[in-house]
Amino acid sequence: MSGRTARRRIVRIDGGQESERPDLLATEEPLGIRVGGEPVSLTMRTPGDDLDLAAGFLVGEGVVGSAADIRSMTICDGTRCGHAGHDDLGNVVDVELRPGLATVLRRNFLTTSACGVCGKASIAELCVRPRWDVRADHLRLPVAGLTAMADSLRGAQRVFARTGGLHAAAAFSPDGGLLAIREDVGRHNAVDKLVGWALREGRLPMHGCVLLVSGRASFELVQKAVLAGFPVLAAVSAPSSLAADLAAEAGLTLVGFLRGGSMNVYSHRERVLAVPAGQTAD
Amino acid sequence: MSGRTARRRIVRIDGGQESERPDLLATEEPLGIRVGGEPVSLTMRTPGDDLDLAAGFLVGEGVVGSAADIRSMTICDGTRCGHAGHDDLGNVVDVELRPGLATVLRRNFLTTSACGVCGKASIAELCVRPRWDVRADHLRLPVAGLTAMADSLRGAQRVFARTGGLHAAAAFSPDGGLLAIREDVGRHNAVDKLVGWALREGRLPMHGCVLLVSGRASFELVQKAVLAGFPVLAAVSAPSSLAADLAAEAGLTLVGFLRGGSMNVYSHRERVLAVPAGQTAD
Repeated sequence: MSGRTARRRIVRIDGGQESERPDLLATEEPLGIRVGGEPVSLTMRTPGDDLDLAAGFLVGEGVVGSAADIRSMTICDGTRCGHAGHDDLGNVVDVELRPGLATVLRRNFLTTSACGVCGKASIAELCVRPRWDVRADHLRLPVAGLTAMADSLRGAQRVFARTGGLHAAAAFSPDGGLLAIREDVGRHNAVDKLVGWALREGRLPMHGCVLLVSGRASFELVQKAVLAGFPVLAAVSAPSSLAADLAAEAGLTLVGFLRGGSMNVYSHRERVLAVPAGQTAD
Repeated sequence: MSGRTARRRIVRIDGGQESERPDLLATEEPLGIRVGGEPVSLTMRTPGDDLDLAAGFLVGEGVVGSAADIRSMTICDGTRCGHAGHDDLGNVVDVELRPGLATVLRRNFLTTSACGVCGKASIAELCVRPRWDVRADHLRLPVAGLTAMADSLRGAQRVFARTGGLHAAAAFSPDGGLLAIREDVGRHNAVDKLVGWALREGRLPMHGCVLLVSGRASFELVQKAVLAGFPVLAAVSAPSSLAADLAAEAGLTLVGFLRGGSMNVYSHRERVLAVPAGQTAD
């Protein structure tokens, strides 16, 4: 497995000047995920936290909901799996689920792409059913708390600052404490890694916590947030229409353009307290 | 089908002030692609240019290379396809290929996810074989030409400016003329739409032209550029390590951080002329 950054020689051109020099890039490499020996996903990701990525991916597909659902996860580096053509560029995570979950995998995941295309395209039908109802989460957050989380994320984005190429996803406790942060070239992978961390730590559902992402918020990110039980998803950039619609329907507070002291709240604004928390009755 | 933007009521919070108001979001909705009646893809996209998206997707999978490869494409809005559960949120594009190509589809695409995961993970094995060799493209571009393209893209990004939520992909002729621009909530979709436009216009391969994207450059975008025959891919933001490696291998000039008068060149820098074009022998 390689590191999160890779050094390459580049030509930097600025105005009329050019210079050859080394530069750091965010590493992108393929990761395969197998469940019970069967391939279920091939994703291009930044190496690191690969077990979290595999676990979070399965949470996002509605297959697992607690650490006990996963019997084992191992990284197959090609020396033991017996598959020809395996080389050191690619890794595979082998997952074994607890008995009975293979059926869930087949129903929720392996059949999805086929079913979905024939026209099951309403929001309700696209969604994986969540195990937890985030509607019932009574978290209340002062605006200053959300702003501080964005500052904290920016400070913690080590690799991003050096390469400009990574998305970040972070979990915060209600009092603004940074619980975990994960980074990846893929926006969805960063969230999968974070949710996989939560699952493996026995922290799901993430009641009372905030999921903060460094980029935009799509339908899929809203779905991943709800499946992990976060009551609030905050994004530094713009959400899509379907992200806002699904958030409203699922009971999630969706915040976008969280920058400086300002933000847009797209759904369930009751969790965001614009006045200082102490002055508001809940 | 809906428009590219959707109006939603939001709460804007700025400092201690909050106000409820309408806001424009980039529309995100599912699009299914069927080939010969068989579902091959379900993507979340911004409505519009759906036939381009379907055509470009098939170019990116190595299935089609010219307009003649596609016998017909029709948008099925649910009133005629006879599939239960179809509603107006989702659209499906039905593609019929010329005889013989169903085999290519099966070999290149439908088997990919399974093969890929068992460890065929070297760059060479991940790549769809291109029909054209971009190595042979003798395009030479002055730095000022690339800078002007970036300015032109920014000026043309109508929807992006209003919602902050869209990626753009544009094709430029060697003299800097904007040939076409496509936008989408998905970075890959924007490129697929652009490549599909080129295919349907009979313009593939895009010899001597530049593909410019508004965001980052991943492995997949490099692959799509090469499959469409572009000799240059320029990105406003950072590339990944694998994007740079594949570009070097395939003969593509990869430019990143194209902003103001500066840029990084990651591969095949011979196509970028740092001094005024007139003063350089080619």
